[in-house]
Amino acid sequence: MDADRDKGASPGAPRVDALDKACGRQRYAADETPPGCLLAGVKRAGIPHGRIVRLDTAAARAVPGVVTVLTRADVPGTNRQGIVHKDQPVLCGQRVRHHGDPVALVVAENKDALAAGLAAVEVAFEALPAVFDPEEALSPNAPLVHPDREGGNLLAHGLMEKGDAESALAGCDVVVAGRFATPAQDHVSLEPPNGLARLAPSGRLTMVVSTQAPFRDRFEIAQALGLDPQRIRIRAPYLGGGFGGKDGATVQCLLALAALRLPGRWIKMAWSREETFLAGYKRHAAVMDIRLGARADGTLEAIACAMCFDAGPYAHLSGEIMELGMEHAGGPYRIPHVRIEGSCAYTNNPVGGAFRGFGVVQACFAVERAMDMLARRLGRAPESLRLQNALRPGETSAVGVAAEPGTDVAACLNAALAHPLWTGREAWKQAAPAFTRRGVGLVAVQNAMGYGRGLPDHATAKLELTRQGTFRLYNSVPDMGQGNAAAFVAMAAQALGQPEAAVACVQPDTAACPPAGSSSASRTVYTFGNALLRACRTMAEKLRNRAALALLCDTPDRLVLTPGGVSDPATGRFVPLSVLAGFLIRDDRICIDQFVMPVVENPPDTGREFKLGFPHRYFTYGACLCGVEADELTGRVRLVQCLLTVACGKVFTLAGVEQQLAGAAAQGAGLALFEELALEGGRIRAGDLSTYLIPTSLDLPDIDCLPLPDDEPSGPLGIKGMGEVGIHGPGPAVAQALFDAVGLDAASLPITPEVVLAALEELTP
Amino acid sequence: MDADRDKGASPGAPRVDALDKACGRQRYAADETPPGCLLAGVKRAGIPHGRIVRLDTAAARAVPGVVTVLTRADVPGTNRQGIVHKDQPVLCGQRVRHHGDPVALVVAENKDALAAGLAAVEVAFEALPAVFDPEEALSPNAPLVHPDREGGNLLAHGLMEKGDAESALAGCDVVVAGRFATPAQDHVSLEPPNGLARLAPSGRLTMVVSTQAPFRDRFEIAQALGLDPQRIRIRAPYLGGGFGGKDGATVQCLLALAALRLPGRWIKMAWSREETFLAGYKRHAAVMDIRLGARADGTLEAIACAMCFDAGPYAHLSGEIMELGMEHAGGPYRIPHVRIEGSCAYTNNPVGGAFRGFGVVQACFAVERAMDMLARRLGRAPESLRLQNALRPGETSAVGVAAEPGTDVAACLNAALAHPLWTGREAWKQAAPAFTRRGVGLVAVQNAMGYGRGLPDHATAKLELTRQGTFRLYNSVPDMGQGNAAAFVAMAAQALGQPEAAVACVQPDTAACPPAGSSSASRTVYTFGNALLRACRTMAEKLRNRAALALLCDTPDRLVLTPGGVSDPATGRFVPLSVLAGFLIRDDRICIDQFVMPVVENPPDTGREFKLGFPHRYFTYGACLCGVEADELTGRVRLVQCLLTVACGKVFTLAGVEQQLAGAAAQGAGLALFEELALEGGRIRAGDLSTYLIPTSLDLPDIDCLPLPDDEPSGPLGIKGMGEVGIHGPGPAVAQALFDAVGLDAASLPITPEVVLAALEELTP
Repeated sequence: MDADRDKGASPGAPRVDALDKACGRQRYAADETPPGCLLAGVKRAGIPHGRIVRLDTAAARAVPGVVTVLTRADVPGTNRQGIVHKDQPVLCGQRVRHHGDPVALVVAENKDALAAGLAAVEVAFEALPAVFDPEEALSPNAPLVHPDREGGNLLAHGLMEKGDAESALAGCDVVVAGRFATPAQDHVSLEPPNGLARLAPSGRLTMVVSTQAPFRDRFEIAQALGLDPQRIRIRAPYLGGGFGGKDGATVQCLLALAALRLPGRWIKMAWSREETFLAGYKRHAAVMDIRLGARADGTLEAIACAMCFDAGPYAHLSGEIMELGMEHAGGPYRIPHVRIEGSCAYTNNPVGGAFRGFGVVQACFAVERAMDMLARRLGRAPESLRLQNALRPGETSAVGVAAEPGTDVAACLNAALAHPLWTGREAWKQAAPAFTRRGVGLVAVQNAMGYGRGLPDHATAKLELTRQGTFRLYNSVPDMGQGNAAAFVAMAAQALGQPEAAVACVQPDTAACPPAGSSSASRTVYTFGNALLRACRTMAEKLRNRAALALLCDTPDRLVLTPGGVSDPATGRFVPLSVLAGFLIRDDRICIDQFVMPVVENPPDTGREFKLGFPHRYFTYGACLCGVEADELTGRVRLVQCLLTVACGKVFTLAGVEQQLAGAAAQGAGLALFEELALEGGRIRAGDLSTYLIPTSLDLPDIDCLPLPDDEPSGPLGIKGMGEVGIHGPGPAVAQALFDAVGLDAASLPITPEVVLAALEELTP
Repeated sequence: MDADRDKGASPGAPRVDALDKACGRQRYAADETPPGCLLAGVKRAGIPHGRIVRLDTAAARAVPGVVTVLTRADVPGTNRQGIVHKDQPVLCGQRVRHHGDPVALVVAENKDALAAGLAAVEVAFEALPAVFDPEEALSPNAPLVHPDREGGNLLAHGLMEKGDAESALAGCDVVVAGRFATPAQDHVSLEPPNGLARLAPSGRLTMVVSTQAPFRDRFEIAQALGLDPQRIRIRAPYLGGGFGGKDGATVQCLLALAALRLPGRWIKMAWSREETFLAGYKRHAAVMDIRLGARADGTLEAIACAMCFDAGPYAHLSGEIMELGMEHAGGPYRIPHVRIEGSCAYTNNPVGGAFRGFGVVQACFAVERAMDMLARRLGRAPESLRLQNALRPGETSAVGVAAEPGTDVAACLNAALAHPLWTGREAWKQAAPAFTRRGVGLVAVQNAMGYGRGLPDHATAKLELTRQGTFRLYNSVPDMGQGNAAAFVAMAAQALGQPEAAVACVQPDTAACPPAGSSSASRTVYTFGNALLRACRTMAEKLRNRAALALLCDTPDRLVLTPGGVSDPATGRFVPLSVLAGFLIRDDRICIDQFVMPVVENPPDTGREFKLGFPHRYFTYGACLCGVEADELTGRVRLVQCLLTVACGKVFTLAGVEQQLAGAAAQGAGLALFEELALEGGRIRAGDLSTYLIPTSLDLPDIDCLPLPDDEPSGPLGIKGMGEVGIHGPGPAVAQALFDAVGLDAASLPITPEVVLAALEELTP
C-alpha cells in the first residue's frame, strides 16, 4: 500500500461523476418526485420578533387541493431542533424570532394549491422589540431573544489563553490595534434545500434529503418529533452544493412532521431561492477587536483578540464556530502570549450556521489585516513580517498546540514569492490601464481539519464485491459537489488494482451505509478515505485468501489483485473475480472498516472551557496572492490575479485539488468584493440573485493553484483535507492589494465600489 | 489479546453443548424428518467384483409406496465422486467392485415400502476374478479392479528420501528388520451416515447432511451430477461422530440424485449400522517393511521403510493418507538417512478412506515396534533408546523438516517416566493376580497438524452482533463431537469480554457461513480458532469505535468491552451493546476474518513428487504408557493402565483436551486389542456390533492425560491441534507391554486372545 502512495489517479481521467453531471443526467434529491407526491410549504413570520396572537388555518384548509395545514399544536416531541443546542422550533407556537421563522406547514396536491394555501393562512403578531447588533444584544437593556433563558442573549462565551498577553503587550516595542468586521454570507448552493418523506405502514420513515449529515439528521428529527431514530431512514443523493448550509436541519423536521400526519404519502418540500435567503442559515457576521504586539525586530510577542459573532435567534453551531474561529485567531504564527475571547450573541437577524471556513474566515481576515498594520508600523514588507513569524513544525501555535511535521506556511509563502505573479508584480502594476490602479497582496492562511478533540471524527466505510465480480463502495459522507465520491472511487480502484469503471458508488443511505459523520470540516476525504482504504485492504486480503483456495496457493500474500481477478505471479495462474464472487455468501462479499482521526494527545490548557472540539491536531496551510485593479472612476474592483499555494499533504488528483481551491477562492472573493445581504431590521434586502451578487466566471480570473510537495502520514495516500483553506485568502489579500493599489485600508468586507470610491475621493483630494 | 493467552476458559464450566446432548435435546441430521419426507435406500452389490448382466427395476417400481427406482441411466454428470481422484461411481452401471457398491437407488413413502422395493430390485452379475491382498494386487497377473486404467492396480506410489539409507544401513553396527501390519478399522460413529435433500422450484438444492466437509461436498456433488455448485446449499448440524468416516461423500450424491428426480420433495437417507459397515469407508489396512539401523551406542543412522496400503476399489484419499503415513514413518526421531517408499493398491475390499490418524496410525505402529526390536538388539531399555534419539526443536526430522520450537517429544517421554504409573511399575507388575501376567510399554508419538504445504489450510469465521446486543458465531467447521463449537464459543466469549451465554453458535451452513475447510487433520480449532479470534478482534475494534461515538471518546482504543456493553475506564461511562446494535445496519453488525495455516517456507526436496500436502510444519508430540494384564488361561488382554503425555500448545480447556485424548486412546485401544472386520473374500464377516467389538467403558481403564506446559505462538491462544495424536500410542505401547508381560512380540494388530493364547502356549512349553 505504501508503494501506492506516490501514484495518484491518472491525471487525464475526468472524475467519475463529471459526465453525468455535465449531461444533466445526475439525479439530485430535487429531481425525485414519486407519483402522487404531495408538496409542502412553510408560512413564515415576515417580522423579526413578535408574539403570535392569532393563527387561523381554516381558510387555508378550505383551499381546494390543500391536504392539511399543520401548526405547533400538531408537533409531537420537543419541537426543538439544533445540532448541539436544541433551541430552534420546528414550528413556532407563541413567538417568532426572525423573518424566516416558520409558523405553519401547508401540504397540498400541487404548486398552485400550495401557494394559495400559504397565502390563506391567517396569522397576526404582536410585534416585540428586536435586536440586530450582536454587541448591542449583550448590553443589559437589550430586548431578549429567549426571555426565559438564563444568560440572556449571550449564547456562548469562551477564552483561550497562553502566557500573559496583557503584560506582554505592555512590554512590546510596537502594538497595533484594530477593529475588523466580516459580514453574513449566503451559501447560494445551486440546489436549494429540499427533500421528500414518507411514513410507511410499518412505521418506518423514509426520507430523501439534500443534506450534509444524514446520519445525524435522524437524531435531530427524532428528538424534535419524539420518534425512534432507528426507524428513520435517510438517503442523501449527490448534493447541488452545500457549503455548510445543509449541515443541520432545513426541511428535515418539517417534512417528517408532514409525513407523520399523512402516513403512506410521499411529501416533497423544495425551498425556492428566495425562501433559502429568508430561512436558510448564514455565515456569522462577526466583529473582531485585535491588539497585536511585536518587538522592534518584528518578532511577534502577543495578541489579544475579542471576537463577537452574530448567532441570529438560534444556536445552530454558533458556539462551535466561535470556538474554531478563536483557535485560528492567532493565525499561522508563532506568538508566545495570547488571549482570545469569544462571544456569540442571540439577535433577531437570520440564523447563523455552518459555512465553509467555519469561523476561520472571520478570524483570518482580522489577524491578517492586523499583520498588515503591524508591518506598516514596523516599516516592513507584509510578506517579510509573515515569513519571520511563520509557525514551523514542532513549534507551538498561538493556542499552544505543537505543529505537526510537514510542509509549513513559510514554504507556502515562499512558493508564492517565487511565482511570476509575485516576481513580475511591479511591471504588472505599472501596466495598469488608464483610470485604473493595480495592487498586489499576499497573506498566509491555515485551516484545521476535522471535528477536534473530544468529538470522535469517525468514519466507517463499506465495500462490496458484487456477485458479478465488480465492486460497490458505499459512500457514507454526502458529496456536495466537492468530488469526494469520485475521489473514493479512484482510491478504491487503485487500492484494489481495478479500473475505475469496476467500482460503482452508492450515495449515503442510512439503511445501507454505516455511519461516517458529516460532510464538513475538511474531514471528508481524510477520514472516510482512511476508512475506505482500510476496507480495501481488508477486501484485498480477503480476495487473496479466497483466491488462494482456487489457486491452491498456501501463501496468499504473494497473490496480487489485477484487473478483473487475482493472479499468482509465481505460477501465472489467474482466477476471475466473477468466479470468486459466485462462491462467496453475501456477507463474505462485504468489508467494513473504520477510522478515527487522531487527536492531540496532551492537549494544552489554553482552552480549558472547551470540552468538545478543541484543540485540532492537523492543519492545512496556504498562502494567497491577489492582484486587483481598481477603477478610479467607478470604484469597481476587479480581482485580476489569484494564486493559491497550499500544503495539503500529497495530491491525489490534481484536478480535484484545483477545483476545490478555485471554488473556495471564488467564494472568498465573493465575500471580499461582492456579497452583501443588506440586512435592515433583520430583513434581508438583497434576498434574491438579482440583488445578492455572487461572482460569476466573468467576474473572476483563472485561479492559479499550486499544491506544494507534502505528505501527511496519517492521511489516506498521504492527503490532508483542503476543502476550506482556499476561502480564507481572498478577503485579506484583496484588502492588502487595495491598500497597495489605492491606499484603502479596509477593516471590513465586502469592499464594494462605494467604499472604494469614497476612499479614492478621500485619499485623492 | 496476548494477555488473554494465559487465561483459558473457566475450568469448572461444562462445554456449552453438554447439557443439550446429555438430555437428548441436541438435534442431529438424523433427527430431521420434514413432513411428507420420502425415504431413500440403496441396493448394493453383495459380491466383490462382477459385471452387471441384468438390472430390472420393474418389480421394485410396482411395490406400493415405492416412488421411484433410479439406476446409472438416471445419473446426469460424470457419475464420479472422490475428494481428489474421482473414480467412484454414484451408481454402478456395468461393474461392481466391492460388496457395498450401489447398483440402484429406491425412494419410497415409508420404511416398509423401501425395504420391499430394495428386495424387489432384480440384479444379476457375472462374477469377475477379484483381488483382496494389496501386495498381490500389484503383481503382474492380478485381476484388475479398473481394467481401463493405466497403471493397473497401483493407485499411488511415492518416495521420500534423505541422505543414502542403503549405504548407511550397510555401515550400521546394528540393523533390525521387520514386517508390521495394521488392520482395517470401522469408525463406528454413534450416528451413521445420513442426510436429507430437496430440490426447490428455484433450482436450488438444499441438503442437511451428517458431514465433515459441507463446503467441499458441494463440489463433489456438482461434479458427479453435472450441477452448479453455487446452487447447492448444505447444512451440517452437530455430528454424532465422524472420525474421518464422514469426510467425503457417503449419502450426498445419492440423495442429490434422488432430489433431482423428485423435485420439491424432501428425501431422507439414513444408513443402518450394517449398511455403514458394508458401504462406509474404512481405515486402510497396511503392511510395512522396515529396516532400522543404528550405531552401537544407539544413535539412529538410517531407516528404510516400504508401506503398502489397501485402498479398496476407489481412491478416496488413499494417496494422501499414504503420503502422511510416509511423512511420519521415521517417527519423532533424529535419523540422518531415510528412504520411505509408499504404495497404494486397488483391491476388491471395502473402500479405504480417512480415519483419525490418517496413515500415521500405521506408520507409528511400525516404527515404534522397530524401535523396540532395535532396543532389544542393543540391550537397551526401549525408553532409553527413544530418549536418546528424540527429535529436538530446530533439528531436522526424518523427512528433512526443521522441528518447530516448543515442548518436544523427549519432554513427553520424561513426563511419562516421572509418572507413578512408570515409577511404580515393578510393584504393580509383581501384584498381578493369579493366572495373569502384567507388563508395561512406553512409546513416543507425533501427529502433524493441517493439510500440509500446497493445500491452503484456510478458515473464515463470521461473527454477528445481534440486534439484541448478543453475539452469534457462525461455526464453519462441523463439530463431530470433538467440542470445537464449544471451544469457539468459549474463545469468542473470552475475546469479547462476554459470558458464554451471550454467544450463540450456528452450525455449518454453506448459505450462511463462509468456507473453512473440513473438520479433519487436527486443524479445526487451530485454523478456525485463529480466524475466529481475528474476527473477534475486528468486532471488538468495531464496537469500541461505534461506542466511541456514543461516549464522545476520540481515543476508542481506551474503551473496553465488558459484559453487555462497552465501558470507558477514563469516565466510567458505559453504553449497552443492545443500544449500539440498534443503530448499526446489519452489514455493520457482522465481522468476517480469515486465517491460513503457515507452511514450511523452504521445503526440503525429500518428497519432490508430492506437490500437495507435503511437508507439514507443525507437529503435536506425545508419549503413551500402557499397562496390560494378560490372562494366562484365556489369552484375554486387559488394558489396565493408560497414560498420555502430550505437548499440544497451551491448554484452552483441560476437559476438552482430556476428552479428545481419552477418546482417541480408546479408539487406539480398540485397534490394538478388539476390532477386527474379519474380511473374507472382500466381505466383512464382523459386519455389526455383535461381532465387531469396540471397547466399551467397561473394557478400558481411566485414561490419564497429562498435557505439558507448551505454547504455539501461531495458534489461537497458543494451542495446537490434538484430536488425533492420542490414537497412535495404544497399539505399539500395548504390544511393547505384552512383550514385557508374556514375551509376545506382536507385529500386527489387533492382538486378540487367540494370538496371545497361542503365544503363551509357544513361549511356555
